[in-house]
Amino acid sequence: MKGNVIVGQSGGPTAVINSSLAGVYKTAKDRGFNKVYGMRHGIQGFLDESYIDLSKYIKNNLDIELLKRTPSAFLGSCRFKLPEIHEDREIYEKIFGILNKLEIDSFIYIGGNDSMDTIKKLSDYAVLTGQSQKFVGVPKTIDNDLALTDHTPGFGSAAKYIGTAVKEVIRDGLGLSYKKDIVTIIEIMGRNAGWLTGAAALAKGEDCEGPDLIYLPELPFEVEKFMEKIRALLKKKHSVVVAVSEGIKLPDGRYVCELSAGKGDYVDAFGHKQLSGTADYLAHLVAAEVGCKTRGVEFSTLQRSASHIASRVDINEAFMVGGAAVKAADEGDSGKMVVIDRVSDDPYQCATGIYDVHKIANDEKLVPRNWISKDGTYVTEDFLDYVKPLIQGDYPPVMVDGIPRHLVLK
Amino acid sequence: MKGNVIVGQSGGPTAVINSSLAGVYKTAKDRGFNKVYGMRHGIQGFLDESYIDLSKYIKNNLDIELLKRTPSAFLGSCRFKLPEIHEDREIYEKIFGILNKLEIDSFIYIGGNDSMDTIKKLSDYAVLTGQSQKFVGVPKTIDNDLALTDHTPGFGSAAKYIGTAVKEVIRDGLGLSYKKDIVTIIEIMGRNAGWLTGAAALAKGEDCEGPDLIYLPELPFEVEKFMEKIRALLKKKHSVVVAVSEGIKLPDGRYVCELSAGKGDYVDAFGHKQLSGTADYLAHLVAAEVGCKTRGVEFSTLQRSASHIASRVDINEAFMVGGAAVKAADEGDSGKMVVIDRVSDDPYQCATGIYDVHKIANDEKLVPRNWISKDGTYVTEDFLDYVKPLIQGDYPPVMVDGIPRHLVLK
Repeated sequence: MKGNVIVGQSGGPTAVINSSLAGVYKTAKDRGFNKVYGMRHGIQGFLDESYIDLSKYIKNNLDIELLKRTPSAFLGSCRFKLPEIHEDREIYEKIFGILNKLEIDSFIYIGGNDSMDTIKKLSDYAVLTGQSQKFVGVPKTIDNDLALTDHTPGFGSAAKYIGTAVKEVIRDGLGLSYKKDIVTIIEIMGRNAGWLTGAAALAKGEDCEGPDLIYLPELPFEVEKFMEKIRALLKKKHSVVVAVSEGIKLPDGRYVCELSAGKGDYVDAFGHKQLSGTADYLAHLVAAEVGCKTRGVEFSTLQRSASHIASRVDINEAFMVGGAAVKAADEGDSGKMVVIDRVSDDPYQCATGIYDVHKIANDEKLVPRNWISKDGTYVTEDFLDYVKPLIQGDYPPVMVDGIPRHLVLK
Repeated sequence: MKGNVIVGQSGGPTAVINSSLAGVYKTAKDRGFNKVYGMRHGIQGFLDESYIDLSKYIKNNLDIELLKRTPSAFLGSCRFKLPEIHEDREIYEKIFGILNKLEIDSFIYIGGNDSMDTIKKLSDYAVLTGQSQKFVGVPKTIDNDLALTDHTPGFGSAAKYIGTAVKEVIRDGLGLSYKKDIVTIIEIMGRNAGWLTGAAALAKGEDCEGPDLIYLPELPFEVEKFMEKIRALLKKKHSVVVAVSEGIKLPDGRYVCELSAGKGDYVDAFGHKQLSGTADYLAHLVAAEVGCKTRGVEFSTLQRSASHIASRVDINEAFMVGGAAVKAADEGDSGKMVVIDRVSDDPYQCATGIYDVHKIANDEKLVPRNWISKDGTYVTEDFLDYVKPLIQGDYPPVMVDGIPRHLVLK
């Protein structure tokens, strides 16, 4: 008889991280596992023995559908890095003590690079101590910066939201700009990788010119050249829209937002510099130098939690990789991460693959230089060909009293 | 034989101002008017003789459906106030010269208070000079601050977006807040009227606690009391979410955002103080005084242009008031504004009415004191009972290649 499965969620929210959770749950049940536990707030909560029996919360297929449409980690997330095994064996003994008590066969962890590090260390410890649990990771990040997988669940929905919202902002500006100039600077997430900022180009189509300029963090941002571009655009049109990554840096390595007085020294609870204010800073700069109306717009947390306009491809793939992780663990894989392989571009087809987490370098996958235009102010058609299949199809929210319904822990 | 209709759009964008335009067009055609002209950028563009024949752009019923789903003014908007008639008769002679040349019977203007002023002056001038054109206004504003009408088209869709996005932000915060506190301050439009900020309470339901505090601009904002509330909430929960109006003011009358260094002196192209930075300021304040992680989120232009999650009730009512304006003008009304009367609360039923624009005071309709909680930090059930019918039903975008399709002028 099969034992139990435990699943956890880690890192930043996405619109589809719960679709992966639903995939884990459904596949575990279908494959005859006994109980499916959920860690509260990932491995950090697990260490406090905070976990639930998921069947008490997912009672039927409607709950599964609601879960797939619920943004942010249903189980709660954490940012917690396990120590090296030789540094602190006690913490591992504690984890495995709980795993054995709960009769866990398969440990599934949904998250980004840090989560794959957790999978690696736990599977190593199991091998070192001759224990039989299997550990498999499920990739997740809106940033799309994980290597080895064609793309990551969460990116497609964030890209779809960004493309849609950029298009709506462009229309907003066009409506207002009669005989006066308006420059709108939109700030998009992505500290080092420009995948999300590049997705602003999705607004472009038969009915929209798209943003006028797109600045990714992969290339240095030159303020003077930027101002020249703005001035040139304002000679041709009244409403100019620019998408910039929160992480764009000057050639000397400073973040652009650090130029904004009183913001550069602001550090968040994780010790990261707070990268807000890039759009505001550039908007004020353009207003001061050009003298026209400007607006800074930050998409902020909306871009990662906007389940209400999630991509069907993304939700389905997130579900699929969750299920594939359970299957892999059930078939004996451990210390592995499920990846998405693009089998075909046209028609778009993807399949899951599996990868040894020991081989994952902690490199961030950046937008290749040849997918950025020569002058560094746009993305190329190749970039769009890569992203477009990932935003296709809708997964409309279940609306109750005019507002999307979510599945939540109470 | 009937003559022609001309229609214009004025003021800030909404998600449904084009649904009113579609209603004008459809009803004008159905009632046998000959041509339907559209002013480019309202009366300002009209003075430059910038107008189009709408039938060249709206070719079939699919175009009408796309138009209803397109945010921001299809025809372009303006902010332009006509002088008093005795101040400058020349401008009126010019306008009526063009109207007569185009054989206009009915002049329909979709906009806010300033637009109703335009209707008043033009209808007065027609009476003064014995001309036969009819002038009727169609209300529009996300702010819902127009008197005499139960509510304004545009408000329902903005409220639906705000309720949905606030709920997603709340889930985002809950997922992240294990053993650490996060305070999120969401800044919502509405300089003097708190209708939109109050709509944050729509997030509340069986699956969501809703925001913890809501501060409308109708009441003075006391920083010290706010900090006390935050401290008390953080003793009970880890993730606190606060919705504030961009226009909240201190008891001494200064805007809260003026406390933010370098922002208070920033004035936009219309001479309005730029009210951004309230959320950022309060987030920094809480971080400094409480020492926890904080985030400032501005919904910005997204709340007024988010057609992708428009309210069906709102889109249909916007269409209806556009049609009612044409009908009124056709039947001989002039110097009037179409209003929405709430016929019944349960079941919700509305009908159009008509109101003399001369009787419209320029008062902004504020949220009544008894629809705000005693301590001024939330809205009441009465407020929610009023708003909820306006956000019901969806009007899903027509998706092309994963992104909503709009109807645009080329």
